[in-house]
Amino acid sequence: MGGRKDEELKDLTLLGNQGTKYSFEYAPNLLETFENKHKDRDYIVKFNCPEFTSLCPQTGQPDFATIYISYIPDVKMVESKSLKLYLFSFRNHGDFHEDCMNIIMNDLIELMAPRYIEVWGKFTPRGGISIDPYTNYGKPGTKYEQMADYRLMNHDMYPETIDNR
Amino acid sequence: MGGRKDEELKDLTLLGNQGTKYSFEYAPNLLETFENKHKDRDYIVKFNCPEFTSLCPQTGQPDFATIYISYIPDVKMVESKSLKLYLFSFRNHGDFHEDCMNIIMNDLIELMAPRYIEVWGKFTPRGGISIDPYTNYGKPGTKYEQMADYRLMNHDMYPETIDNR
Amino acid sequence: MGGRKDEELKDLTLLGNQGTKYSFEYAPNLLETFENKHKDRDYIVKFNCPEFTSLCPQTGQPDFATIYISYIPDVKMVESKSLKLYLFSFRNHGDFHEDCMNIIMNDLIELMAPRYIEVWGKFTPRGGISIDPYTNYGKPGTKYEQMADYRLMNHDMYPETIDNR
Amino acid sequence: MGGRKDEELKDLTLLGNQGTKYSFEYAPNLLETFENKHKDRDYIVKFNCPEFTSLCPQTGQPDFATIYISYIPDVKMVESKSLKLYLFSFRNHGDFHEDCMNIIMNDLIELMAPRYIEVWGKFTPRGGISIDPYTNYGKPGTKYEQMADYRLMNHDMYPETIDNR
Amino acid sequence: MGGRKDEELKDLTLLGNQGTKYSFEYAPNLLETFENKHKDRDYIVKFNCPEFTSLCPQTGQPDFATIYISYIPDVKMVESKSLKLYLFSFRNHGDFHEDCMNIIMNDLIELMAPRYIEVWGKFTPRGGISIDPYTNYGKPGTKYEQMADYRLMNHDMYPETIDNR
Amino acid sequence: MGGRKDEELKDLTLLGNQGTKYSFEYAPNLLETFENKHKDRDYIVKFNCPEFTSLCPQTGQPDFATIYISYIPDVKMVESKSLKLYLFSFRNHGDFHEDCMNIIMNDLIELMAPRYIEVWGKFTPRGGISIDPYTNYGKPGTKYEQMADYRLMNHDMYPETIDNR
Amino acid sequence: MGGRKDEELKDLTLLGNQGTKYSFEYAPNLLETFENKHKDRDYIVKFNCPEFTSLCPQTGQPDFATIYISYIPDVKMVESKSLKLYLFSFRNHGDFHEDCMNIIMNDLIELMAPRYIEVWGKFTPRGGISIDPYTNYGKPGTKYEQMADYRLMNHDMYPETIDNR
Amino acid sequence: MGGRKDEELKDLTLLGNQGTKYSFEYAPNLLETFENKHKDRDYIVKFNCPEFTSLCPQTGQPDFATIYISYIPDVKMVESKSLKLYLFSFRNHGDFHEDCMNIIMNDLIELMAPRYIEVWGKFTPRGGISIDPYTNYGKPGTKYEQMADYRLMNHDMYPETIDNR
Amino acid sequence: MGGRKDEELKDLTLLGNQGTKYSFEYAPNLLETFENKHKDRDYIVKFNCPEFTSLCPQTGQPDFATIYISYIPDVKMVESKSLKLYLFSFRNHGDFHEDCMNIIMNDLIELMAPRYIEVWGKFTPRGGISIDPYTNYGKPGTKYEQMADYRLMNHDMYPETIDNR
Amino acid sequence: MGGRKDEELKDLTLLGNQGTKYSFEYAPNLLETFENKHKDRDYIVKFNCPEFTSLCPQTGQPDFATIYISYIPDVKMVESKSLKLYLFSFRNHGDFHEDCMNIIMNDLIELMAPRYIEVWGKFTPRGGISIDPYTNYGKPGTKYEQMADYRLMNHDMYPETIDNR
Ligand SMILES: [Ca+2]
Ligand SMILES: [Ca+2]
Ligand SMILES: [Ca+2]
Ligand SMILES: [Ca+2]
Ligand SMILES: [Ca+2]
Ligand SMILES: [Ca+2]
Ligand SMILES: [Ca+2]
Ligand SMILES: [Ca+2]
Ligand SMILES: [Ca+2]
Ligand SMILES: [Ca+2]
Ligand SMILES: [Ca+2]
Ligand SMILES: [Ca+2]
Ligand SMILES: [Ca+2]
Ligand SMILES: [Ca+2]
Ligand SMILES: [Ca+2]
Ligand SMILES: [Ca+2]
Repeated sequence: MGGRKDEELKDLTLLGNQGTKYSFEYAPNLLETFENKHKDRDYIVKFNCPEFTSLCPQTGQPDFATIYISYIPDVKMVESKSLKLYLFSFRNHGDFHEDCMNIIMNDLIELMAPRYIEVWGKFTPRGGISIDPYTNYGKPGTKYEQMADYRLMNHDMYPETIDNR
Repeated sequence: MGGRKDEELKDLTLLGNQGTKYSFEYAPNLLETFENKHKDRDYIVKFNCPEFTSLCPQTGQPDFATIYISYIPDVKMVESKSLKLYLFSFRNHGDFHEDCMNIIMNDLIELMAPRYIEVWGKFTPRGGISIDPYTNYGKPGTKYEQMADYRLMNHDMYPETIDNR
Repeated sequence: MGGRKDEELKDLTLLGNQGTKYSFEYAPNLLETFENKHKDRDYIVKFNCPEFTSLCPQTGQPDFATIYISYIPDVKMVESKSLKLYLFSFRNHGDFHEDCMNIIMNDLIELMAPRYIEVWGKFTPRGGISIDPYTNYGKPGTKYEQMADYRLMNHDMYPETIDNR
Repeated sequence: MGGRKDEELKDLTLLGNQGTKYSFEYAPNLLETFENKHKDRDYIVKFNCPEFTSLCPQTGQPDFATIYISYIPDVKMVESKSLKLYLFSFRNHGDFHEDCMNIIMNDLIELMAPRYIEVWGKFTPRGGISIDPYTNYGKPGTKYEQMADYRLMNHDMYPETIDNR
Repeated sequence: MGGRKDEELKDLTLLGNQGTKYSFEYAPNLLETFENKHKDRDYIVKFNCPEFTSLCPQTGQPDFATIYISYIPDVKMVESKSLKLYLFSFRNHGDFHEDCMNIIMNDLIELMAPRYIEVWGKFTPRGGISIDPYTNYGKPGTKYEQMADYRLMNHDMYPETIDNR
Repeated sequence: MGGRKDEELKDLTLLGNQGTKYSFEYAPNLLETFENKHKDRDYIVKFNCPEFTSLCPQTGQPDFATIYISYIPDVKMVESKSLKLYLFSFRNHGDFHEDCMNIIMNDLIELMAPRYIEVWGKFTPRGGISIDPYTNYGKPGTKYEQMADYRLMNHDMYPETIDNR
Repeated sequence: MGGRKDEELKDLTLLGNQGTKYSFEYAPNLLETFENKHKDRDYIVKFNCPEFTSLCPQTGQPDFATIYISYIPDVKMVESKSLKLYLFSFRNHGDFHEDCMNIIMNDLIELMAPRYIEVWGKFTPRGGISIDPYTNYGKPGTKYEQMADYRLMNHDMYPETIDNR
Repeated sequence: MGGRKDEELKDLTLLGNQGTKYSFEYAPNLLETFENKHKDRDYIVKFNCPEFTSLCPQTGQPDFATIYISYIPDVKMVESKSLKLYLFSFRNHGDFHEDCMNIIMNDLIELMAPRYIEVWGKFTPRGGISIDPYTNYGKPGTKYEQMADYRLMNHDMYPETIDNR
Repeated sequence: MGGRKDEELKDLTLLGNQGTKYSFEYAPNLLETFENKHKDRDYIVKFNCPEFTSLCPQTGQPDFATIYISYIPDVKMVESKSLKLYLFSFRNHGDFHEDCMNIIMNDLIELMAPRYIEVWGKFTPRGGISIDPYTNYGKPGTKYEQMADYRLMNHDMYPETIDNR
Repeated sequence: MGGRKDEELKDLTLLGNQGTKYSFEYAPNLLETFENKHKDRDYIVKFNCPEFTSLCPQTGQPDFATIYISYIPDVKMVESKSLKLYLFSFRNHGDFHEDCMNIIMNDLIELMAPRYIEVWGKFTPRGGISIDPYTNYGKPGTKYEQMADYRLMNHDMYPETIDNR
């Protein structure tokens, strides 16, 4: 069945593991990585995460969002099941939407040291208004830093139609 | 439940407040702010506001719009419930569509002194024609001013299909 | 230009009238009618009203809905501009969603004595949940009463997808 | 190239005719028919007519609609180019939406004496409200009359979402 | 501001209450009711609840669903904020999808004794397959019981297109 | 690889055949069948055929349609590649839309003697109007004849939105 | 975390099992069941399965479909992970579309003895035509048999728009 | 009700005027303006006009289009009701699609002397083909002229899907 | 009825001509032009052509595509009815998708000598894969050549979702 | 029927070949090419491949994706049926999503030595998250290398809405 060898997969403790534990506390240490086999090339990996939920820090009410994460890997790549468990750990955690997106990006930068990364959250409305924070990062002093500036400047010029239904 | 501490939230009088009053007069003083915790980073916060309504200054008939507000915070950030109450205060106020969008942006600039901001209103039709004003702003003398020019020049080159149904 | 004669239109005081007043109080007396020219036939007139807004009776916060009204006329038919002004008069009025829909239907029954009528409101969410009340009526003792039962029994078996965005 | 023979097409004066005249006056006499070759069978022909426009009888302003016409032919069938020219003749004609739909159906009944027919107009909004009249007919004393009742009773229980954009 | 009087609202402890507590345990006792003012009429109230989440009883992983609840009230009607808090109490609760839908319906029947009720959950996929349980109920021995049979027999004959994206 | 045996497929001359010939003349004899293995059961097979094109009998201009064919097999079932070649043979053939749909159904009835069958063509517009003929058939004297009546009576009560774009 | 007890789940060998084996041979014995806890009630469970693939029995080329399965459970209910593995076992199996749908339904009837069941496959096109077989079943001699007839008679009167893109 | 003062609105003769006349001849003199209150700022006003109709200069048949007009105002701004009446005056006027769009833009340039303007018409098909002309303009010798070049070069690289239905 | 004068239209032999002949052989000589009245301005004309069909050069089976053609006219402009007849002449012609698009563009360049032109074909699938060739051209040595490079480099970065249904 | 001559097609062994074999092992040698007839021009060919399936290297479970491949040909062009068979050969092959996309692009670069190429896979979700890898390449030392950088920097700034349904 070819592809990745056992040797290459040996550090992954969560993928395909039956006894998965779900943390109810914010747990960045759940994140795991594997090695990029195409380091000579710039390419983008995007995660679509429509099942994100956290709590409002002030009122405790649940918040829901779809999060889109895109990055250009350098040496390390985040394994998707560990990402899922990490995002789950926000389930009973309270923070502003704007803070959550920055925290997630910070944790992934610390984990992978990616060339480029961006995180975009699209939340459901409270009081008739919804909030969509977007943050990004490029390795300082590289062309990826310019890429981050460029993509921020061009961000979301065609807002999707929102009617709260 | 972590995240923002009470100390950080103490200036917010409206979020989670039971006795909310709804102003029927244009009331920019309703707007409140909290502090940006990620000032070292340029990032964008977007508000989707599909429940905006005002009156026509000439005929008094009600107008309806969805408003999209995006900004890059500097030191201050607008709190979303106060934004909701501020927008509500246009409910019985009369002004041209084009003026409303510029007034809202002016008020938010005065409130937050953001690095960058844009406001786009999409109104329902009157007499078979609908009007969508878009205005933006970047801090004068900074790269954000150029960002404003750039985004205006590239604004809405793919108009959504409108058929008045 | 044919069609309806001045004689037939003489009771309509609002259509095409420049000096329209918008009532800020619930005002069922604004409703006006004209005569059905096709009384020998059962046919349906539907009004799509996406610009309805009222207030929450408890908290005073604004509510927004699209209302769909369908009826089979008997002798009288409601004139659409008067309907618009009537619906506008809920703008600063507070009531539960479920009550508003029943009140609107009651007023139209009293106005027109239609053979059949139904009113369906689809509101925007509060606290993550939206409410869509549906009510209908057929002239008692006629086949239209059975029609009302039948349509209620078959009501909305394919709920539109709602994701609050 | 088979199919319909010249003999069968000889009464059609408009189809493929270069010198087509467009009438600016309501002109039901433009309608032409050809013979049904499948009279032993009940089947339905539907016309989708998204380019209908007429005038408001009171204010003279233009109205726009998509009209859907479905019928079961008996002996005669309406030729589509003549139908197009007939609908065009409403261009500078003024009448209420509800009346227009009934007039069109009456003219087609007189022309073809169909077993069953229905006409549904969906108009663009005026003052935030749009009107969609629906009328139908089955040959009196036949099962098609019951079909008309049945389809009216079941009419449009899933209103399309209308937001005037 | 008319409508419902304070007297009528006095039993509602949650609506507009600032100090809302969110229960992390399954808590059917959170549900509150108010009185139906239109008991002489059959009408339908639908709740759209796109923010439902629970846990898998076997693996502990989070599940997400949109729940549609429709009912014909008899004497009591469920208040929507209490419904929201009740649904929230499934957040850390584990059960099969099929069981959750039946439990929610059972609780609402016990609370309101509605004439008719139905609950439809549409879950996100696990392992490439998603599950959508639908259950309903009509007061035994009444026409509403027949209504329940009828609606089950006609349930979802046009499955929405699902492609897991 | 199981399933249908060579024995069962031996009469199919077109499926998987490299030297396929495309007829430019109307050619009903191209149609081939295989045997129904589930004769004890009523079930429906639907063909979606979005690539139908023929010619106008009067003007010679090309017409385009999507055709939907559904049937309940009795003993014989039409093989799909032979159906494709048969439909292709209309490519340079001229006939009215209404006639084409009836001819296709007649040919399939003669070929398969199905319990039930229906054919629906949806054509692109000419002169701003499009035509969608629908015809069906149930074996005379059986419940399938009633099924045909029933489906005709209920046909297309929710016309898709057509705007010619 | 409540809900289903270990006792109730003890016969499920696949759900949450790390060492899952994927069969490359048609394997109906993979299917597992658990007990229905709401046997007093008729309710419907629907599975959306967009990841079905099999092979053409004649040419060996891969076929792809979305399968929709709905049933009313009696005593036993199919566990969804075992259903996934069962459907996977068609991956290298060859059969006609029409046969596959009937085989799947037969296997589920044998497994669960459901009160009612239906299976609908929607395949991607070959040669410009796609095929969508639909089959259903109700326990003979019960009202569910009539339900099967009724749903077949009403099947898919609004074909989704197919354009092969 | 604040906003624009009577003084500022005194030159508008059409907005809110009951006795509106609709010209049947091309009438650029109907256009009226009001003063821009935000001249220090570049911002965009877009008009969505889905109810445009004219005649073919050769055949006299009616044409239909949706027109999108966007401009950056300088000193003067076009009033929307006067724009509506101006566009109406094309109703019985004949010209090629490409010419109409350029004429409309020329008239608005002469009226307002805007910094930038663009006009895009999307017509319904004739003979299976539809035409969408796009034209734009920036004040010569200014950055708006470059903006016009830039937007033309980037125009419509993602054509909407057109299928004439 | 103004607009284009007879003098300006005298070279058009096909528009409005009753005796139109449809060529079954590839016939670039069918193309006709009229003069550009706005030569001082760069503007774009787009043709949407959803009714293109040709044959596979190897197998003879029919292919179907929607073609989008956009160009900036210089002196000559292609007349749309002649374009329709030209595209029709591919009906019984065989060539690869990639070749057809380049041939069409070559013929239009020879006909009109446009400043800029692009042709994009989107075909229906064969064997589960569809092909969309895109080709463009700018007058050599002008800014339009750079425009062609620029648009190619930016081509289709947001592929439409294709699922072959 | 013109177009490509037999001489030009003689190296294609798979297109139109009846005895096609489907490889169950990763088989890059299946890919075949034909010669580019428009080498003087830069143009883009896109393949839409919604029927890709492979296996997870760790768990063996099936994965599904839609793959979009775009390239600018130099001398050689990939024949689409051989591409289909090549993609099929991943059917029973296991590899990470990120690796599969890079392998496919590497094989096509080796086959065709294209000026530019990009490959984008959009997978269905596992555990609530889906992954969309995108990789591209331009001939080193040419403007196509810059094109690759440019397109990566601008990649997917408008993520499609993903909700796993
Ligand atoms: Ca929405
Ligand atoms: Ca929605
Ligand atoms: Ca729209
Ligand atoms: Ca619309
Ligand atoms: Ca939505
Ligand atoms: Ca939305
Ligand atoms: Ca709409
Ligand atoms: Ca989907
Ligand atoms: Ca999707
Ligand atoms: Ca359309
Ligand atoms: Ca499609
Ligand atoms: Ca379309
Ligand atoms: Ca359409
Ligand atoms: Ca599609
Ligand atoms: Ca589709
Ligand atoms: Ca979706």
